[in-house]
Amino acid sequence: MENFSEWFHDILENAEIIDSRYPIKGMSVWLPYGFQIRKATLKIFRDLLDREHDEVLYPLLIPEEELAKEGIHVKGFEDEVYWVTHGGQKELNEKLAIRPTSETAMYPMFSLWVRSHIDLPIKQYQVVNTFRYETKHTRPLIRVREITTFAEAHTVHSSSAEAAKQVETGIELYKEFFDELGIAYLISKRPVWDKFPGAEYTMAFDTIMPDGKTLQIATVHNLGQTFAKTFEITFENKEANHEYAYQTCYGISDRAIAAAIATHGDEKGLQLPPELSPKQITIIPIIFKDGGEEVMAKCLEIKKSLEAKGIRVQMDTRDIRPGKKFFDWELKGTPLRFELGPRDLNNNVAILGRRDSGEKIETSLDENIAEKVSDLLVEVEENLKSTAWAKQEEKIVTLDTLENASGIVDEGKVIKFYWCGDEECGRAIEEEADLDILGINEENIETDKLCPHCGKPAKHLALIAKTY
Amino acid sequence: MENFSEWFHDILENAEIIDSRYPIKGMSVWLPYGFQIRKATLKIFRDLLDREHDEVLYPLLIPEEELAKEGIHVKGFEDEVYWVTHGGQKELNEKLAIRPTSETAMYPMFSLWVRSHIDLPIKQYQVVNTFRYETKHTRPLIRVREITTFAEAHTVHSSSAEAAKQVETGIELYKEFFDELGIAYLISKRPVWDKFPGAEYTMAFDTIMPDGKTLQIATVHNLGQTFAKTFEITFENKEANHEYAYQTCYGISDRAIAAAIATHGDEKGLQLPPELSPKQITIIPIIFKDGGEEVMAKCLEIKKSLEAKGIRVQMDTRDIRPGKKFFDWELKGTPLRFELGPRDLNNNVAILGRRDSGEKIETSLDENIAEKVSDLLVEVEENLKSTAWAKQEEKIVTLDTLENASGIVDEGKVIKFYWCGDEECGRAIEEEADLDILGINEENIETDKLCPHCGKPAKHLALIAKTY
Repeated sequence: MENFSEWFHDILENAEIIDSRYPIKGMSVWLPYGFQIRKATLKIFRDLLDREHDEVLYPLLIPEEELAKEGIHVKGFEDEVYWVTHGGQKELNEKLAIRPTSETAMYPMFSLWVRSHIDLPIKQYQVVNTFRYETKHTRPLIRVREITTFAEAHTVHSSSAEAAKQVETGIELYKEFFDELGIAYLISKRPVWDKFPGAEYTMAFDTIMPDGKTLQIATVHNLGQTFAKTFEITFENKEANHEYAYQTCYGISDRAIAAAIATHGDEKGLQLPPELSPKQITIIPIIFKDGGEEVMAKCLEIKKSLEAKGIRVQMDTRDIRPGKKFFDWELKGTPLRFELGPRDLNNNVAILGRRDSGEKIETSLDENIAEKVSDLLVEVEENLKSTAWAKQEEKIVTLDTLENASGIVDEGKVIKFYWCGDEECGRAIEEEADLDILGINEENIETDKLCPHCGKPAKHLALIAKTY
Repeated sequence: MENFSEWFHDILENAEIIDSRYPIKGMSVWLPYGFQIRKATLKIFRDLLDREHDEVLYPLLIPEEELAKEGIHVKGFEDEVYWVTHGGQKELNEKLAIRPTSETAMYPMFSLWVRSHIDLPIKQYQVVNTFRYETKHTRPLIRVREITTFAEAHTVHSSSAEAAKQVETGIELYKEFFDELGIAYLISKRPVWDKFPGAEYTMAFDTIMPDGKTLQIATVHNLGQTFAKTFEITFENKEANHEYAYQTCYGISDRAIAAAIATHGDEKGLQLPPELSPKQITIIPIIFKDGGEEVMAKCLEIKKSLEAKGIRVQMDTRDIRPGKKFFDWELKGTPLRFELGPRDLNNNVAILGRRDSGEKIETSLDENIAEKVSDLLVEVEENLKSTAWAKQEEKIVTLDTLENASGIVDEGKVIKFYWCGDEECGRAIEEEADLDILGINEENIETDKLCPHCGKPAKHLALIAKTY
């Protein structure tokens, strides 16, 4: 696609995902079709998280006093927090923040609950809306003022090692999640100046958008004892000593859906991996003057057999040309299409159409169609995923110099380079290239390379890009 | 229960449903166990609504200008709205209301979408949090400042008759919903002075709480063309004339869960209808020194067979006395218990315990346990429901006079009386008795009775009670 930004704007509208004409900038309405995609995404997410986390729900509003407790944290958010100051006609005694994230809503409660090491670990998550008063240009699902889908996990542990291990678990969970969405990603340890406010370190997932800019789609933070000290989360350890707890948190957002749309979409419109697609196959009976009843009867029979196999099917019986139906469902990204007309029926065949490859597969009606569709859905899923990874591969270049970094990035690339890892050097690189260091992709590698900026021995393979 | 208020407060804490120690009055945390009950409730709700509504999601914040558009509506909420006035350190150009309900968030969008009668009907719903700056005494799930579970449906129609019919559909949906929750209810048409601000009329569901006070648990509003006129929702009808659309809206809240807890709970704790209960049966292996392995093996086998039948099972293998386990799961309201000890195993029997009746049923292990459990769950569900309705029946008295209304209501009753239906008379009745007229339970009946207050011929059977 030539102009991704325009394409993305149009697809949200044309495929009826989001309506961004809501009368507040940066806040949009999830339309029925978009909502179904969101629901399917969250189902995948919850199935993964439920394995070892408890889902919970905390209030939206946070007293100013709690938000202000953790200085570094509040500093990171102070320009972005929406404040509630009035209830009815009255001014409130204390301002209330609309959560920009929920550490300061949750951790005062953790402090009430945690007494002993037997109360640990705590592993909770919630799926909520959060708010950021964005001053930059907003874009639905990508940079918004109401993040409608903020899925945040928070854990509490009795040792530093266990917290570090939980960070790994968080990363593994998100890998599985994005794999199911067929989204390619780059994992890196964010530079210290770009970590989550209050975290010891931040691991992040970025995906490369069609225009070459990277989009942060998930983060996993090791919070160490910073918040535990601020919110007095202490426990009696096995030796009967009181100790501050160790914490992690990790989250994804609407951007996961934006990334799925951007990754798989094409000139024809949306393209959805079978797990995300509200319907996985559209049955289109091709009906002329004669033979309509038999075609319909056969289509209904096929529909039933597909549903019996757990496949989400729809039948498009609108009184419009088949071509228009093909167009509509290609635009909406349904992975498969099943076409049957009277002549096909006479010949005992039907056509299965793939949205991904455009392939039209003639299929005997004597075959087990449900099984064939089921197999095709797996193929489509794998194809979308491997295409995404192949595209990512093409966009990454490993360079020994950052001399023309900006120009190369402008061609849609993300650069890997050998880096010393020093903060001062890193900030200088970013400024000179007018790019962002995503972070360290491979830490403490053995190399003879030198840092292209400061000339000191390189320690890491780092990523630099233009970011959303 | 002697003191319902205290019982309700304790059960939320002891059964780990809600933690109300959150540092803002009237806002609470859903704990893992409570969240599962909420999730099960919403599943029932969504399965019903999805039959003919699209789920969607609108922003939380509403510009002051939109909220203010519909005068009657805003008047009804002006003392209760939370206002956002600042983004970061800056004062916003326009104040933003946190939705108290979503008419004014949704209807400007409807106005963009509706052009012709072929765009109608629209039937949407969303499950969101809404906010009311309550000045009265708050109580978790019942009177709160953050309604965490506000499930609101909004519909748009091309005729008044269709909107009126949709009101009936809404009522039928909610009947099914509360029937599945085993909650008894009274349906009435709210008096004009108590209808939804902006509605033509309001139908409401109330349930009688254990203390005899009624709790409004659902409302269905016919909005007529009021909002359509305010928000310019017009369509071209079949005769090519432009007409204002006809609307309805209807909603339920956290109170549905409060009602389920209050209806079925008893001195032992929570009691959950099988569909609401996170787990439907607890397997408790009774293990002494010997024979533990065989007992465990058999319990695991039973667990698998129950799961295969789609029953939600848990096994309690904690190293504590069985008595404590019985106590815990009775408190948490799991409908059934399965106990098996070494001696039972030798005798080829096990005990199935019912939470509702306290019955202990000896069961041969040769029986099809899964089928038996499945049948018992149906019995429990029916028993809880019929008990709820029987209790409600006992609490309703039909009276010819309202002379001692207040005293009778104080004994835990709800009064049915023959009423003329006049607003002035109704308001006087409420004031004199210090009670609320819930509304008209049976409209335009044929009766020789006279209104007990004004002496005019009665037209309706109305309900009067003390309300939450």
